[in-house]
Amino acid sequence: MAPATPVTLFYGTFVDLPRTKSSSKHELSIRHGALWVSTSTGRIAGSDWSITSEAQLQSLVRQHGWPSTLRIIRAREDLNEFFFPGFIDTHIHAPQYPNSGLFGSSTLLDWLETYTFPLESSLGNLSKARTAYDKVISRTLANGTTYASYFATIHVGATNLLATLAHTRGQRALIGRVCMDNPSFCPSYYTDGSAQESLSATKENIAHIHSLDSEGKLVKPILTPRFAPTCSPESLSSLGALAASHSPPLHIQTHISENKDEVSLVQSLFPDSESYADVYDKHALLTKRTILAHAVHLTQTEMDLIASRDAKVSHCPASNSALGSGIAPVRQLLESGVTVGLGTDVSGGYSPSILEAARQACLVSRLLRHTQQHSVTLAKEVKDGHEVLSVEEALYLGTRGGAAVVDMADDLGGFEEGMLFDTQLIRLGGVVPSSPLESELGSPVEKNDSVVDIFGWESWTERVHKWVWTGNDRNVRAVWVGGALVHSSEDKFRAGNGSESFLGALTGLVGGQDWLKYIAGGVGVGALGWVLGRKR
Amino acid sequence: MAPATPVTLFYGTFVDLPRTKSSSKHELSIRHGALWVSTSTGRIAGSDWSITSEAQLQSLVRQHGWPSTLRIIRAREDLNEFFFPGFIDTHIHAPQYPNSGLFGSSTLLDWLETYTFPLESSLGNLSKARTAYDKVISRTLANGTTYASYFATIHVGATNLLATLAHTRGQRALIGRVCMDNPSFCPSYYTDGSAQESLSATKENIAHIHSLDSEGKLVKPILTPRFAPTCSPESLSSLGALAASHSPPLHIQTHISENKDEVSLVQSLFPDSESYADVYDKHALLTKRTILAHAVHLTQTEMDLIASRDAKVSHCPASNSALGSGIAPVRQLLESGVTVGLGTDVSGGYSPSILEAARQACLVSRLLRHTQQHSVTLAKEVKDGHEVLSVEEALYLGTRGGAAVVDMADDLGGFEEGMLFDTQLIRLGGVVPSSPLESELGSPVEKNDSVVDIFGWESWTERVHKWVWTGNDRNVRAVWVGGALVHSSEDKFRAGNGSESFLGALTGLVGGQDWLKYIAGGVGVGALGWVLGRKR
Repeated sequence: MAPATPVTLFYGTFVDLPRTKSSSKHELSIRHGALWVSTSTGRIAGSDWSITSEAQLQSLVRQHGWPSTLRIIRAREDLNEFFFPGFIDTHIHAPQYPNSGLFGSSTLLDWLETYTFPLESSLGNLSKARTAYDKVISRTLANGTTYASYFATIHVGATNLLATLAHTRGQRALIGRVCMDNPSFCPSYYTDGSAQESLSATKENIAHIHSLDSEGKLVKPILTPRFAPTCSPESLSSLGALAASHSPPLHIQTHISENKDEVSLVQSLFPDSESYADVYDKHALLTKRTILAHAVHLTQTEMDLIASRDAKVSHCPASNSALGSGIAPVRQLLESGVTVGLGTDVSGGYSPSILEAARQACLVSRLLRHTQQHSVTLAKEVKDGHEVLSVEEALYLGTRGGAAVVDMADDLGGFEEGMLFDTQLIRLGGVVPSSPLESELGSPVEKNDSVVDIFGWESWTERVHKWVWTGNDRNVRAVWVGGALVHSSEDKFRAGNGSESFLGALTGLVGGQDWLKYIAGGVGVGALGWVLGRKR
Repeated sequence: MAPATPVTLFYGTFVDLPRTKSSSKHELSIRHGALWVSTSTGRIAGSDWSITSEAQLQSLVRQHGWPSTLRIIRAREDLNEFFFPGFIDTHIHAPQYPNSGLFGSSTLLDWLETYTFPLESSLGNLSKARTAYDKVISRTLANGTTYASYFATIHVGATNLLATLAHTRGQRALIGRVCMDNPSFCPSYYTDGSAQESLSATKENIAHIHSLDSEGKLVKPILTPRFAPTCSPESLSSLGALAASHSPPLHIQTHISENKDEVSLVQSLFPDSESYADVYDKHALLTKRTILAHAVHLTQTEMDLIASRDAKVSHCPASNSALGSGIAPVRQLLESGVTVGLGTDVSGGYSPSILEAARQACLVSRLLRHTQQHSVTLAKEVKDGHEVLSVEEALYLGTRGGAAVVDMADDLGGFEEGMLFDTQLIRLGGVVPSSPLESELGSPVEKNDSVVDIFGWESWTERVHKWVWTGNDRNVRAVWVGGALVHSSEDKFRAGNGSESFLGALTGLVGGQDWLKYIAGGVGVGALGWVLGRKR
């Protein structure tokens, strides 16, 4: 027998969304069995869905010649645990995280002035930036986000810090230094001095990220013109040219058609362009690696243009509702051939959770039939609910959709062999009543546990639906990126002391190679133990 | 000095919404000081907002001649704790709780057939009913709901059990046996045999509740014709007459204008009525003690009729979005003089939390401007955002609004002297980073804590906004109804051993009188201690 490839073995229930064309009906794939991940590549090396018992599992281990030190992570059936692909947040503003929940009754343009620009400008202070960025990475990981496309600020130092922190914590990320040089639409206290300054600062940030992660395995740069009104035509053009000068071309992210007043503003600022989308297209910013956030008020012509360039859309329903922007017509986008993922848009969005974004995507799609827009553009579909997103479809957008948006559809979003193991372990909890003392004690006895109530008669599909509608970060027990554990809500995942016996531990620490102390912050390692992050 | 009235003393930050006319702008009242509650009546006996220190607090105690056994409950400033009025859920279906999160992509009428009637009919089984009702009471209390207006099922036994459980657990509640006798719109397996059977079963339930709580201090009956299509005209009339035959008249609850197809159905079923609201009015069911759930598609004429009868509306935004029903025009209702409260509408609504309902009320009010309905009826207001509900307004609806809906506006919803002390203690948590090890350990260190992140620079108003947008049941540390502790997430609240020293404990158990073992379920009291419920 050939020497076995070092792997970690995962055993239990695996739920994902099979990759399909956008026009197909999405259904959950629910499989029980074993899956193993190469510890060197972090990719899925194989799976066997015929394994249904511990005896078969042991037989599988012997058959592969895996060593006695093999780590096995089990999803507990009695606690309704399952493995699910990590969420991909295709649009999030890291520096705005401290403002989560603060927006009053404002809409986009006054929200920027009142809440957002003042906070972002203050993140030039590296200490403040570190506090905010540590927290947003902690919170997104705790919510199962294995990949985030971050807007940072205009500050090179703080943006570099965000890249370093994501890299050290082991979160896959695109990191974008925000470009905004149009003095008419940027506050005087928070603006790039010129298109040239904007470009050279952006290049500094790219150089830092490339020095941090030369192969872009975990963290990559993304060009980030804030949105058309804050950028001079010169700046837009130079960023488009910069993207194309790299091989492969650099990622690009910006905003589009979030708010009706914004659309009018762009029309007045760029009278020579046929549309908002055309502004970006004219400056070579509509590419297959471009993420356009929002896309609430696009015309069909713009959707067709975006589809023809294979540019991607980040749907941010929580933010669109919170700021009263409107409801993005996701079905129309998909049927126009546009690839769509989900974004939290923190802090226009109030939540760092893609599960919440999936929930909101479902909700607003159910309200779409009541909008003016819908009655005009989709009259034929008003009656059949065609525009409604199912739970399965929302989960698809949050995993496979997001993977395609960040141009990693072959690498992320599911459990196929060869894919990177970016995964969350979800625990719904035991069947109600979880204890015969439930009635006596009320809810305190379960204060640390799931609020997803499983009564025992639900199918696996129904259990997943309950998770989507009533679950939260409490249900995320562990998160892996590229096979490395990057978050756990349980001490036993963090032990890292190699004490797990062969087939012994119900759960255990994956990997075991090169775990490093967290040093980016200059903070010493305390008594509480190991760090959830792997240097690579 | 006269002998002091036995009280419990509460000290810290108190947040509520001052009682105002519906047309006024709502603002938070944020006060720091001491408030005391009579242990015999459960009502607020006094308050002193000049108390700002422990020394002043001790002076207050001496001045009142309170004994050394006085219990003092402190809200911890360092953990951003505050007292807030208990939430009032004006519309919730207790038997549907196990279906929370299960509705697929259905709308009202097919949802009833597919998901709801089968589950409700199964609750005739008392064991199953007990499991569901225990859980829904636990979950609503844990989310700060001190008063719930419950729909039960058609079963007298199970409905009586719900009343007993709410009473024993100490939750204030209206309990309604559902009436549905129209064979054309009730499934054959789940229907009252006739209007007469419906009426007599309802009377049995009323008798049980009156025997349980003769003065209606905690639990009261509420007449519950499901909605017009499921009830014969004879049944509607007899319920209207039954309500009027009591003094004061019995409470009434039903549904109205949730869904457009439902509105059309009612028009066809009651051709002699001018409108859906008129159907209820013709049967004497529109009274000042009537709760109408949903009210999404009312005409202005119907709103005027409802206002003239002083009937109330329960706004259930999570449900209305989940089932695609539409967006209730809350501003228009309020300006028409209709009293509005919030409802979770479990399980059309997926969440048992009124905080979530408040959040959803804010969100959908921000989308209202994009609806067809809004553009027609409120054209003049489209531009000014007049229809948008502020966070403060949503909290008002969830407390004061709900109190008015259940006809207890003088007793519940705020901290005025003489009001019943139905209150939640909210903990947002310490300032970020909560520990210097945060960066090293990621979020696991705070796994049991709040996900509301306070950075230290937020005003109290902003902290409350963060709670509304990002908080959940983890922030509810304790809940009192009529001064009695009915839920706590902390063991120290439950100790109940009288060990708190004078001014000693940071937190402690209120009351101390007649705590009883939970016996309704026939379950023995286990080792874990006392029961969160007070027999009265």
